[in-house]
Amino acid sequence: MSTVKSINNNKVLQQTIKAISQKAKNASNQTSSISSTIKNKALLLMAEMLESNSEYLISENKKDLEYSSNKGMSGAMIDRLILNKKRIKSMAYSLREISKLNDPVGEVTRMWKRPNGLIVGKVRIPLGVIGIIYESRPNVTSDASGLCLKAGNAVILRGGSEAYFSNMAIVSIITKALSKADVPEDTIQIVPMTDRQAVVELLRQEESIDLIIPRGGEELIRFVSENSRIPVLKHYKGVCHIYVDEFADLKMAVNIATNAKVQRPGVCNSLETLLVNKEIAKKFLPLIRKEYIKADVEIRGCKKTLDILTDATPATEQDWYEEYLDLIISIKVVADLDEAISHITKYGSMHTEAIITESYTNSQEFLGRVNSSTVMVNASTRFSDGFELGLGSEIGISTSKLHAFGPMGCEELTTTKFVVYGNGHIRE
Amino acid sequence: MSTVKSINNNKVLQQTIKAISQKAKNASNQTSSISSTIKNKALLLMAEMLESNSEYLISENKKDLEYSSNKGMSGAMIDRLILNKKRIKSMAYSLREISKLNDPVGEVTRMWKRPNGLIVGKVRIPLGVIGIIYESRPNVTSDASGLCLKAGNAVILRGGSEAYFSNMAIVSIITKALSKADVPEDTIQIVPMTDRQAVVELLRQEESIDLIIPRGGEELIRFVSENSRIPVLKHYKGVCHIYVDEFADLKMAVNIATNAKVQRPGVCNSLETLLVNKEIAKKFLPLIRKEYIKADVEIRGCKKTLDILTDATPATEQDWYEEYLDLIISIKVVADLDEAISHITKYGSMHTEAIITESYTNSQEFLGRVNSSTVMVNASTRFSDGFELGLGSEIGISTSKLHAFGPMGCEELTTTKFVVYGNGHIRE
Repeated sequence: MSTVKSINNNKVLQQTIKAISQKAKNASNQTSSISSTIKNKALLLMAEMLESNSEYLISENKKDLEYSSNKGMSGAMIDRLILNKKRIKSMAYSLREISKLNDPVGEVTRMWKRPNGLIVGKVRIPLGVIGIIYESRPNVTSDASGLCLKAGNAVILRGGSEAYFSNMAIVSIITKALSKADVPEDTIQIVPMTDRQAVVELLRQEESIDLIIPRGGEELIRFVSENSRIPVLKHYKGVCHIYVDEFADLKMAVNIATNAKVQRPGVCNSLETLLVNKEIAKKFLPLIRKEYIKADVEIRGCKKTLDILTDATPATEQDWYEEYLDLIISIKVVADLDEAISHITKYGSMHTEAIITESYTNSQEFLGRVNSSTVMVNASTRFSDGFELGLGSEIGISTSKLHAFGPMGCEELTTTKFVVYGNGHIRE
Repeated sequence: MSTVKSINNNKVLQQTIKAISQKAKNASNQTSSISSTIKNKALLLMAEMLESNSEYLISENKKDLEYSSNKGMSGAMIDRLILNKKRIKSMAYSLREISKLNDPVGEVTRMWKRPNGLIVGKVRIPLGVIGIIYESRPNVTSDASGLCLKAGNAVILRGGSEAYFSNMAIVSIITKALSKADVPEDTIQIVPMTDRQAVVELLRQEESIDLIIPRGGEELIRFVSENSRIPVLKHYKGVCHIYVDEFADLKMAVNIATNAKVQRPGVCNSLETLLVNKEIAKKFLPLIRKEYIKADVEIRGCKKTLDILTDATPATEQDWYEEYLDLIISIKVVADLDEAISHITKYGSMHTEAIITESYTNSQEFLGRVNSSTVMVNASTRFSDGFELGLGSEIGISTSKLHAFGPMGCEELTTTKFVVYGNGHIRE
C-alpha cells in the first residue's frame, strides 16, 4: 500500500513540476517582449505591496521560525530566517533599485556590414526560464524574482523547507503585483513542495527551463550540478588570495589584508591566504600579525613565516586549499611574483585575487596572468561583489567560466541573438 | 580472466584520459598568455606543414578508407572521409584564414569607474581547455584546433574511429608545428582510443576541461549531453522557417524560398517549413510550386495549401516538427504575423527564421518577437553560418541559449574576467 501511495505521490509531483515549468515557458514567451516601463511598474508595485503586507509576511514567517526552533536549528540560522519590518523594507528597497537598472533586453551589442551588403547585429534577449534553487534567507525570493523579471525572464523558485511559509507568502504578494501591472502571473512561480524529489524533477525540465542557479552551501550546489540536465551556473568556494609584492606600500597592504580577512570573514570574497614577498616579509609580517592579533585571527604559516612569526601555527598542505570562512588565515612567504601566481593557480578557486604593489610592471603582469574571475590591484577582495563592482545587484557568483565568470547581474540573465537585414540575399 | 583484463584496460583508459586532461590544463595555463604573433606563427606553420606532408596524410587516410569500405560504409560517408591534395589545401587555407582573425584574448569589453574611485573592467580571457567530440570529416581536426589555439585555449580532440589514422596523422603534424613556434605541444592533443568509454571518461574530467563541443549526429550529441559533467554547447536540429508576409515582394520570396530549400538541403540552416500569409497564398503558392517541381522538392501542405496546390501531399502534425535535411518542404498558410510567430514558437528549433516583407512594421515586429538564434529579413536562411555572418570561422552552432546562441566563432571560445584598479580601497 505505501509503495502504491508513494508511486502516486511521485506521479503527482512529476505532473506538478512539469505543469509549472510549462506555464513558466508560456509566460516567458510574453515576458520576453514586455516594455521596461511595465516591468519597472511591476517592480515598484512588488516593493509597495511587500511593505503594505508586512504584518501578513511576519505572521507567516513566525510559522517557519517555530518549526525551525522546534527542529533545533542554530541561532545563527534562525537569525537569517527572520522577517521583520526592517528586513521587509530592505527587500522593497532592493526591488526599487532593480527598477532603476538599465533594461538589458534589446541592447544591440554590435552591428556590422558584410561585403555582400547584409547587415548583421547581435541583440540581447532574455534567457527564457530560470530556476533558482536556494536555502534559508527569504529575501532571495524577492531579489531573484526582481532580477529575473527585469531581464525579461520567467522564474521558478525553489526555496528551502525552513522558509516554506515565508517564501509562499512573498510569492503570493509579488504575483498579485505582477497581475496589477499586467505582467503574466506565471512569470514568477514557486514550487510548493519541500521534498528533494521536487528538485530532481525540476532539474529534468530541460525542455522548458534554460538555466538553473543554485544558491546555498556546497552540498546543495553539488547535488544540483550532479542531477541537472539543464545548464547550471555554479559557485563553489572562494579561496581568495592577496599577494603583497616586494614593492607594496606596506601600510596599504596591512590595511587591505586586514579588511579582506576581518571585515566579514564568513563570506566567499574574504581573504583566505596571504602570499608575502620574501624581500619585505621581515618588515611586513610583524605589522600584519599585530592587526590579526587585535582581531583574534589565527595565523597558520609556512616554514619561512614561522621563522619570523615564531608563535604562528604551522600550515599543513591542506591549509592552502582551505576556505576557512572564519578568523583563520594561512600565510606563505614566496620568492617572487612567479611563485605567487603558481601558488594561486595550484591552490586557488578562481574567485578573487589581489596584488598590493606600487610597481607598474608587476601590477600589469598580475592582472594579465591571473585568470581568476576577479583580479585586483591595491583593493580589498571584499569588493568582489555584483553591487560593489557596479552591476547594480547580484544574482550569484559564477566560478565556472561558461556564460558568466564572477559576479552576475541582470545582464548575465540574458543571451544574444543574431539579427540579419537583407535585401533579397541568396547564397550562390 | 577476461573480466580482470577488462578492468585493467578500463584503468589504463581512465589513467590515460586523466593524464591527457591534466596535460591540457597545464598547457592552457601557458597558452592563455601567448602573444597573437606567436599564435599566428604557429597557425601558418600548421598550414605549411600539412601541405608539405600531403603524401603522408593521404597514405594514412587510405588506411581509414580501406577499413570503412570493408565495414560497408555508404559512399556518401566515405566521400566525407577522403583526404586528397585539394582537401588538404583547403584545410591549410582555413588555418591561414584563422591566423588573420582578430585575437579575442585581452580585449577590454567594457570599463567603468565606481563612485568610490575603483576602476572596473571586463577583459576577455580564454576558456581554458576545450574538448571536441566529432565524427567523420578529418578537416574538423585542424579547423577546431586552429580556432581553439587562436582563442588561447588548449584542446582535446576525440574524432570518430572511422577517421582514426587520418586524425592521428593530422595531429602529429600540427603538434610539430606548435613545437617549432614555441607553443606547448600539449596545447593540441588527441585521444588515441576509439572506444566509447574513452568519451565517457573525457566527459568526467570536470576538474580540467572547461567546455565540451560535440559535432555530429543527434545521437552523438544526446550521448554527450547526457553523460557530461562538463558544460556542453549543443546543437540539435535546425527546423528553419521562412514567413512570406502579406507585403512580400513575391519574386524575392520565390528566390529566397527556393535558395533556402534547394541550394544545399542537407544542412541545418536549410529551409524546412514555409509559412505563407493567406492574402498572397493564391498568387505565391503556384509560383513557388513551379520552382520546387523543377528542383524535385516534395511539398507537404496544410489543408489550405492543398486547396491551392491540389497535387501536394497532406502534411501530418509530425511534419511541422520535422528536420527533413532533404528535398521535402512543409507549407502552411497562416492568417497573419501572429499565427506565423505562434507556429515558429511551437514547432521551431530556435535555429534560424526569416520574414520576407516590404512592411517596415512587420519586419521590426518579426525581428523583435522571434527569439531564435538568428532572425532575418529578406535573406536566405542559408546565411546562418559563422563564416557568412562574419565571425571568420565557425566552431559550431549552439541552439541552447547559455554562453552562446547561434553560430560560434573564436570569441565564443573565450569568457571574461573582471579587473579592478584600486588605490588602497577597503570596504567600510
